[in-house]
Amino acid sequence: MNSGDLGEFELIRKAFQDGSPETHPTTSVVNGDDASVHAVPDGMELVISTDASVCDVHWPDGFPLQSAADRATCAALSDLAAMGAQACWAWVCVMSGSPDDLVELGKGVNAALARYSVELSGGDVAYSPVNALAITVGGMVPVGKAMCRNQAKEGDGVWIIGRAGFSSLGLKQWMAGMEEGYFKRYFEEVKPKLEQGVRLRELGVRCCIDVSDGLLQDASHVALASNVGMTLELSNLPGWDLLCHKVGEESAVRAAVSGGEDYALLFTAHEGMGWLHSFATQIGVCRSGSSVDIQLNGTALEALPSGYDHFA
Amino acid sequence: MNSGDLGEFELIRKAFQDGSPETHPTTSVVNGDDASVHAVPDGMELVISTDASVCDVHWPDGFPLQSAADRATCAALSDLAAMGAQACWAWVCVMSGSPDDLVELGKGVNAALARYSVELSGGDVAYSPVNALAITVGGMVPVGKAMCRNQAKEGDGVWIIGRAGFSSLGLKQWMAGMEEGYFKRYFEEVKPKLEQGVRLRELGVRCCIDVSDGLLQDASHVALASNVGMTLELSNLPGWDLLCHKVGEESAVRAAVSGGEDYALLFTAHEGMGWLHSFATQIGVCRSGSSVDIQLNGTALEALPSGYDHFA
Repeated sequence: MNSGDLGEFELIRKAFQDGSPETHPTTSVVNGDDASVHAVPDGMELVISTDASVCDVHWPDGFPLQSAADRATCAALSDLAAMGAQACWAWVCVMSGSPDDLVELGKGVNAALARYSVELSGGDVAYSPVNALAITVGGMVPVGKAMCRNQAKEGDGVWIIGRAGFSSLGLKQWMAGMEEGYFKRYFEEVKPKLEQGVRLRELGVRCCIDVSDGLLQDASHVALASNVGMTLELSNLPGWDLLCHKVGEESAVRAAVSGGEDYALLFTAHEGMGWLHSFATQIGVCRSGSSVDIQLNGTALEALPSGYDHFA
Repeated sequence: MNSGDLGEFELIRKAFQDGSPETHPTTSVVNGDDASVHAVPDGMELVISTDASVCDVHWPDGFPLQSAADRATCAALSDLAAMGAQACWAWVCVMSGSPDDLVELGKGVNAALARYSVELSGGDVAYSPVNALAITVGGMVPVGKAMCRNQAKEGDGVWIIGRAGFSSLGLKQWMAGMEEGYFKRYFEEVKPKLEQGVRLRELGVRCCIDVSDGLLQDASHVALASNVGMTLELSNLPGWDLLCHKVGEESAVRAAVSGGEDYALLFTAHEGMGWLHSFATQIGVCRSGSSVDIQLNGTALEALPSGYDHFA
């Protein structure tokens, strides 16, 4: 029997209850009621984020749906990483026109959640002519310790954990039908830096963002919220030489500056935290002013492309 | 300037920051960071639900978008009502192909949230060829007091607060282009029974569901989860005589049994709680067995239509 013969509720069971991650210890009313109910222990705060993913926007039509849903789930979890939160729960809306697609999307969601021990706490399915997901994730952080965009200070170093530009180049290679494209796996597999986010927060980092819209745009969000300027040096980026070697300097600049969806963590830390280099890379400094200036080998770059705009 | 000239971030501001409800006192990191952060006071648990709404599925194409988004938001809040939770926060994904539509949808979400003093705590916008919303709502309930589907006991009365069938008849009248359709307002305006949900929970009610998929389907969810049978009498429904008078008995039965989206609260209460009739209506009893039997004037009805199935 294919999935089209199942009723809606059986279909939900098929899509979401096979391989589903285990119930989280905080959960007192599980998925299946009108809402889920969870304890938040003393001394902890609740952290929540939501992300939409739409076919032909967040993934190309023809991309395997399990992978699309896995990516979307990991992208949502990356927002918890940026806050330094411990990921606990997810509530997932799946919109699809096809029962078979719905099952594939559900499997991708579950696979990603299981990998990070995040409970599928609730959800909704709806018919839609376009495959789309809306993924809400929740976690916990000690009271007052969430890393935020508005905590950068003049003199702080600007640091990154992860790549910039690799994912957008991978998407281009996927769209071009390249069988062996070097960057493809950086688009196909999103790895939310949950452990690293918790570690940064525990080490005392106060300001972090995940690079989802491109380095320039996301650094600008931090600069604006914190009322600082920044100077960033592209040649300090992890993998910069490789990037230039593979695609040439001009494409490397474009990808690193405005290519989105790498889900690197961009954070700031005061001068005394230089020892962070054992697992992160300093790419710049915060200074007075309000602009984010991008340099390559010490020379300022002008007229840079900005990140993705859904309504441009 | 129309909305098409705005960048994505300006557009989000326009859609969601005009008339936005106030920051909730529990919130420590507001909308605009990677995630929002909230305190959950001692003795309280977190309650979360998510709902998708898609054009041409949850509202007819041509229905005013502000009203569509208002309805969608209220439908999501109704799940918190069914749990007896105090509504606090919402995180909203809006998917649209048009900046102007996006602004209308945002206004509808904000209007509904402001009416119920629920904070817009976060969200995401994405381009999509189909207008759609995914609305996650959060609230709080005293530990262990959430009303659930699995708490009905044999001998309990089955009660309702609100109408059954009126909304689906309203949708039909809207689709037929009736200017003066009596039922239209029941489709156009969803009123989540948040105050009533909290009151039921405070009075000791343990089992509740909101009637979103039709009386038979939702009563069956409770019966299955609680391992009881139910017998319900349609003529006891609030407004039953009016319903029959307006559309005839056959259509009244169909609407009451399988018409969705009324967002009534269906709950069970033990015999000693008969005094609930001051603000609720008893429509049946829980008994042994597993079926939900629907009667009209004491006679069992057979071959009833079930509720809405997204993939039937």
